[in-house]
Amino acid sequence: MRQRHKPWADDFLTANSQLVIPEPGKYRGHWQSVFGNENPIHLEIGTGKGQFLAGMAKQYPDVNFIGIEISKSVIVTAAQKVMEVDRDNIVLLNIDANHLRDVFADNEIATVYLNFSDPWPKNRHEKRRLTFQAFLEKYQTILDQAGEVVLKTDNRGLFEYSLVSFSAFGMQLQEVNLDLHKLQDPTNIMTEYEEKFSAKGQVIYRCRARFL
Amino acid sequence: MRQRHKPWADDFLTANSQLVIPEPGKYRGHWQSVFGNENPIHLEIGTGKGQFLAGMAKQYPDVNFIGIEISKSVIVTAAQKVMEVDRDNIVLLNIDANHLRDVFADNEIATVYLNFSDPWPKNRHEKRRLTFQAFLEKYQTILDQAGEVVLKTDNRGLFEYSLVSFSAFGMQLQEVNLDLHKLQDPTNIMTEYEEKFSAKGQVIYRCRARFL
Ligand SMILES: C[S@@+](CC[C@H](N)C(=O)[O-])C[C@H]1O[C@@H](n2cnc3c(N)ncnc32)[C@H](O)[C@@H]1O
Ligand SMILES: C[S@@+](CC[C@H](N)C(=O)[O-])C[C@H]1O[C@@H](n2cnc3c(N)ncnc32)[C@H](O)[C@@H]1O
Repeated sequence: MRQRHKPWADDFLTANSQLVIPEPGKYRGHWQSVFGNENPIHLEIGTGKGQFLAGMAKQYPDVNFIGIEISKSVIVTAAQKVMEVDRDNIVLLNIDANHLRDVFADNEIATVYLNFSDPWPKNRHEKRRLTFQAFLEKYQTILDQAGEVVLKTDNRGLFEYSLVSFSAFGMQLQEVNLDLHKLQDPTNIMTEYEEKFSAKGQVIYRCRARFL
Repeated sequence: MRQRHKPWADDFLTANSQLVIPEPGKYRGHWQSVFGNENPIHLEIGTGKGQFLAGMAKQYPDVNFIGIEISKSVIVTAAQKVMEVDRDNIVLLNIDANHLRDVFADNEIATVYLNFSDPWPKNRHEKRRLTFQAFLEKYQTILDQAGEVVLKTDNRGLFEYSLVSFSAFGMQLQEVNLDLHKLQDPTNIMTEYEEKFSAKGQVIYRCRARFL
């Protein structure tokens, strides 16, 4: 997701440090204290412009949501989106998913969402896919016993790869949906990419998988 | 697959007992002796009119193929199809998949093919789906250590169900393909249903899974 360079991004982030938490490693093992409650924490990786997280936070007030996003200019847009819904059960982190374990303690997370993750279609880029084995290891560590990974994508190659990768890692598929929008599930919160690709007639895939 | 009653079917089957083997339980544990070689045995369950099996037997002369089909009038059509290709690495059995273990010994089979199996979409018919847990148990017993189940279908519901069912049974997905014909794989042998549904523009799904 390319965005223009935003020279004011640093000032914006400093001014909004209650929403986009600086030095998140400080809260490792204590994220519930940030929210001031004991609700489960759901994590979205690669939040993009924040539409999913904002919608989920409205729909599920008893869940705490954390969005991580590697791009500073993108997370600024997500922060603006999140401010519009004015909820206190969301925070954002401007970090790389590779560093998840520095920021979250074992079993600290209840659900990991991967929405329209970059597909990295070339074989030599397999390691960058967010469902590559090395990422699954990180998710397994930070997720609690019943914790799930929920993946949505329009990308056939990424979805096929992810099902096989989950399976090879010994994860169990809880649900596979090969045409999510056929369900017309009113609780499904669309991401920006989901709106864009489904408007073009692309099928949306979803699966849920857990570690045993 | 409904077919007209064929009053001559019994006579036809009696006359062709080298191809449609009567009393197949007699060969339990000795199927290679029927073929007169030690080649691996691949089993198609619900062979229908035999196009897949005939094509595979031509393409893979060093594999022995057994097709099982519950319907007598359908297996007659399959036998006629198989005769056209005139290979000695195919036999057919007019049995119900429920009785697999009476006909095959442990580890006797290398691959199980499920092609366009009846989807039984209603929940209360789950037990009839050929990827229901009770069937997987049978496949596990008759398959050898490296044995695989290969499923092809156009039916989204059956495919979604089967991926979850394989996973719940502890099987590992080796491959998932959500648009098989995009591959333009010249080694893919189409079944009758595959030709019919792909001509209508339906996507064809395939997966391969194995027991650990
Ligand atoms: C294709 S976009 C999808 C955005 C959003 N989830 C949606 O569905 O509309 C992928 C996003 O993931 C972010 N991203 C990619 N790799 C990441 C990583 N390793 N850690 C955190 N975010 C990452 C990208 O910056 C981009 O914003
Ligand atoms: C939908 S047709 C598909 C035929 C063929 N495989 C194809 O792809 O064109 C399913 C076939 O499976 C057979 N069948 C269904 N249940 C069976 C069972 N329990 N044992 C053996 N054959 C079965 C049916 O009689 C029918 O011929």
